[in-house]
Amino acid sequence: MISEDKALEEHKNRKGKYEIVSKAPLSTRDELSTFYTPGVAFVSSAIKENPAGAYEYTSKGNTIAIVSDGTRVLGLGDIGPQAGLPVMEGKAILFKKFGGVDAVPLCIATKDEAEIVRLVVEIAPTFGAINIEDIESPKSFRIVDALSKSLDIPVFHDDQQGTGVVVLAALLNSLKLAEKGKDARIVINGAGSAGLGIVRLLSHAGFKNLLVVDSAGTIYKGRPDNMNEFKEEIASATNAERLQGTLDEAVRGADVLIGVSKKGMFTKETIAKMGAKPIVFALANPEPEIEYEEAKAAGAFIAATGRSDTPNQVNNVLAFPSIMRGLLDARARGLNYEILEAAATAIAKSTGKELGIDRILPDPLERKIAVKVASNVAAAVVAASVRAGLARLQADPKEVKRQTAERIGRCWKMEKRILK
Amino acid sequence: MISEDKALEEHKNRKGKYEIVSKAPLSTRDELSTFYTPGVAFVSSAIKENPAGAYEYTSKGNTIAIVSDGTRVLGLGDIGPQAGLPVMEGKAILFKKFGGVDAVPLCIATKDEAEIVRLVVEIAPTFGAINIEDIESPKSFRIVDALSKSLDIPVFHDDQQGTGVVVLAALLNSLKLAEKGKDARIVINGAGSAGLGIVRLLSHAGFKNLLVVDSAGTIYKGRPDNMNEFKEEIASATNAERLQGTLDEAVRGADVLIGVSKKGMFTKETIAKMGAKPIVFALANPEPEIEYEEAKAAGAFIAATGRSDTPNQVNNVLAFPSIMRGLLDARARGLNYEILEAAATAIAKSTGKELGIDRILPDPLERKIAVKVASNVAAAVVAASVRAGLARLQADPKEVKRQTAERIGRCWKMEKRILK
Repeated sequence: MISEDKALEEHKNRKGKYEIVSKAPLSTRDELSTFYTPGVAFVSSAIKENPAGAYEYTSKGNTIAIVSDGTRVLGLGDIGPQAGLPVMEGKAILFKKFGGVDAVPLCIATKDEAEIVRLVVEIAPTFGAINIEDIESPKSFRIVDALSKSLDIPVFHDDQQGTGVVVLAALLNSLKLAEKGKDARIVINGAGSAGLGIVRLLSHAGFKNLLVVDSAGTIYKGRPDNMNEFKEEIASATNAERLQGTLDEAVRGADVLIGVSKKGMFTKETIAKMGAKPIVFALANPEPEIEYEEAKAAGAFIAATGRSDTPNQVNNVLAFPSIMRGLLDARARGLNYEILEAAATAIAKSTGKELGIDRILPDPLERKIAVKVASNVAAAVVAASVRAGLARLQADPKEVKRQTAERIGRCWKMEKRILK
Repeated sequence: MISEDKALEEHKNRKGKYEIVSKAPLSTRDELSTFYTPGVAFVSSAIKENPAGAYEYTSKGNTIAIVSDGTRVLGLGDIGPQAGLPVMEGKAILFKKFGGVDAVPLCIATKDEAEIVRLVVEIAPTFGAINIEDIESPKSFRIVDALSKSLDIPVFHDDQQGTGVVVLAALLNSLKLAEKGKDARIVINGAGSAGLGIVRLLSHAGFKNLLVVDSAGTIYKGRPDNMNEFKEEIASATNAERLQGTLDEAVRGADVLIGVSKKGMFTKETIAKMGAKPIVFALANPEPEIEYEEAKAAGAFIAATGRSDTPNQVNNVLAFPSIMRGLLDARARGLNYEILEAAATAIAKSTGKELGIDRILPDPLERKIAVKVASNVAAAVVAASVRAGLARLQADPKEVKRQTAERIGRCWKMEKRILK
C-alpha cells in the first residue's frame, strides 16, 4: 500500500502530473511566421472555409476534455472540483500512456445538470471527444445522454461505459475458462454508474439472465421504494422472474457475482451459495467486497478485484485509453453499444495464450501487452464505428493497428526522455 | 513571407501544435498506485481539507486557459471557435517557450457575453490564470472587467494589456533615445482592444499628453457619434484640450504616433507633419500602417512595426509569457496597472547595452535574451504583485529569476529532445 506521506510528497515534487509541450519548432523567424502570425492566418481561413479542416490542421482530432464537477471522486464523495483535480490529472496521463490521447483535465465549479451540459456543448469545438468523469449518478447518466444527443463528437462515461467494457472482457474470458455460455446467471451488486454500465453492455451483448441488487435488495419491476428512471431501466432489462429479496437470496445458484458496491459486502457464505465453478468479481475500490484470497478460499473458481497486488486486476485502464484512441482515429460522431462490445471482445482476445484462471485479462504494465491491447482495441473500435455509420474517416483497421503501436511506442519513449 | 501552401502543409504534418505529456512515471504498479488510485485519494483529501493545496499538489499553479470565441481572430474577423483554434494553439506554445507556462487553448461555441463570463468562472478551479484572446471589443473589455471582479486568479487580456505593455516598453526606450520625457505628445490611431490598453497603461504610467483617433476622427469628450463606454473612458483620459478633426490634424507637432489600426493608414505626409525626432510605431498586423523603410524615408527618428523582417519588431511575445510567469509564481489573486507597468519597465531595461534606434526592444529569438527578458519580467511582476497585496506567495524575486532561467532553459532543451 502507498503511504499518505509518499503520495503527497511525490505530488508536491511535481506540482501537477502533466504539462503541455510544443510539437512545432519556434526557433527562427520563419518558424514563428509559419506557426503563428502571419502564416497561421492561412490555416484559420482554411478551417473557416471547411470546418472538417480542424481535424487536419489542429489538435482537435487527438485531444479530449476530462470533465468533472468533483461530486463523486473515487470513494471520497462530493469533494469539489479542485480536490478532484489530482484524479483527473492521473486519468489524463493514463490516456496518454495507454492510448496516445491528449487529455485536458477540466474540473468545473458547477454541480447544476443543465449548466454542465451547456458548458460541455460550449467547449466542444476544441475537442475530438469528451470524457465525463466522477460526476454523481443518476445526474451523470442524464448529462451523458443529453450530450450524446446534442454533440457530434463521442461522449464517453468511463465510470459507466469503461467499467462495462472491462467487466465484459473479464466475463467473456472467465466464462470460456468455466465452459459456460451467455445463459449464465449473473448477479450484479450495486446500481450506480458501474452497475448501470454493466447491465446496459451485458444486455446488449446477449446476456439475459441478470439480477441487480442494491441497498434495498434485488431490483424488480414495480419495486415500490428506492427507484429512479435508471433503476427502472435496470428492472426492465433484468430479473424477468421478478425475484425479490436480499443479496444472499439472489446469489443462490448464480454462476457469476459482480460487486460494484463497497468493501466487505461479500462473505464466504455468499460465495458458498453460488452454483458450480463460481466466478466472483469484487470490484469496489480501493478495497473490494471480498479479498481475492478469501474468495478463492470460499470456493471461487475465478476471483478478481480492482487491486493491483493480487491476480486478475479488473482495471479500466485496459479500456478507456484504447477505446478513445479508436474513436479519435475514426473521427467518430458518437458512440454506441456495438462499439463498446467490440472493444470488450478485443480486450478479451488480447489476453492471448496466457489466458488462465489467474490471468483473465492482459497486464497493461508490460509494454508489449499495452501496445497489443491498444492496437487491437483501437482497430476494433474503428471497424465498429465504420459499421455503425458513426465514423467520419473510413480508417483501415490494419493501418490503425500499425499507427497505434507506433504512437504508444513513441509515448513510452518520450516519457523516458522527459522524465530523465 | 510564408506561403499558404507551406503554412497548411506544416500544420497538416503535425495535426496540432501542442501535446500533453506526463510528468509522472507510470511504469510500475507502485507508480500507478502513487499517481492514480489508491494513492491519489490522499492528495484529493488533502486539497479538500486545504484548498490552497491545489497550488502545491496539482498543475493549477502553472496552467492557464486561453479562452476565445473566435469573433476577432487576427485580422480575419469573426471566423468562429474552430477556425480560431490554430491561433490559440500558436499562442499556447509561445506561452510555454517564452514563459514556461502550460496553456490550454479553449475555443468556445458561444458569443454571448454573460455566457462567456459564466463559463470562465466555472472552469477557473482548474487554472492559475486566464488569458482572454481574440474576442471582439468592446464585449471583450466587459468580459475581462467582470471576470477580474469575480475571480480570485488573474485574468489577462493580451490584445489589450499585452499590447499596452510592449508598446510602453518600446516607448520608454524610444523616448530615452530621443531625449524626450513623459510630456511627449502621443497620438494613437485606433480605439479597439490595443488602443484602449495603450491609453490605460500610458495614462497610469504618467503620460498625460495623449490623443486617440478612430475612424470618426479624434476622440473628445462629448463627441456625438461613434462612442461607447470605453471610448468615453478614452475621452476622459486623453485630449484635455478637446481637439477635434482628422488624424492629419492630430499629428501636427506630435512626438509619437502609434498605429493599432490597419494597413496604409499612415503616409509620408502624416509623418512629415510631426514634431522633431518623430517616433512612429505602425503596429497593424500582418501589414503595418506604413512600412518601416517608408517611415524612415519620411523622416522618422525611430520606426517600428509588428513585422519580423525589419528592425524594431514590437511583438507581444516579449510580454505575455513572462507576465504570466510572474503572476503564476506569485500565485496572484489578480492583476493591476502597477504590475503591467513594472513588466514594461523590465522589458525596456532588458534591451541592455544593445539599445539603439534600430534596437528599441530585446530580440526574444536569441536564447540568452529570451531567458533574460523572462527572468527580469517575472521577477518584476512578482515584486509588483507583492507590493500590490495581490500575491498569495511572497516569492523572492531573485529566486524567481533563477527559477525562470532554469525553466526556460529546460523548455528549450526539451523542445529539442521532443522534436528530434
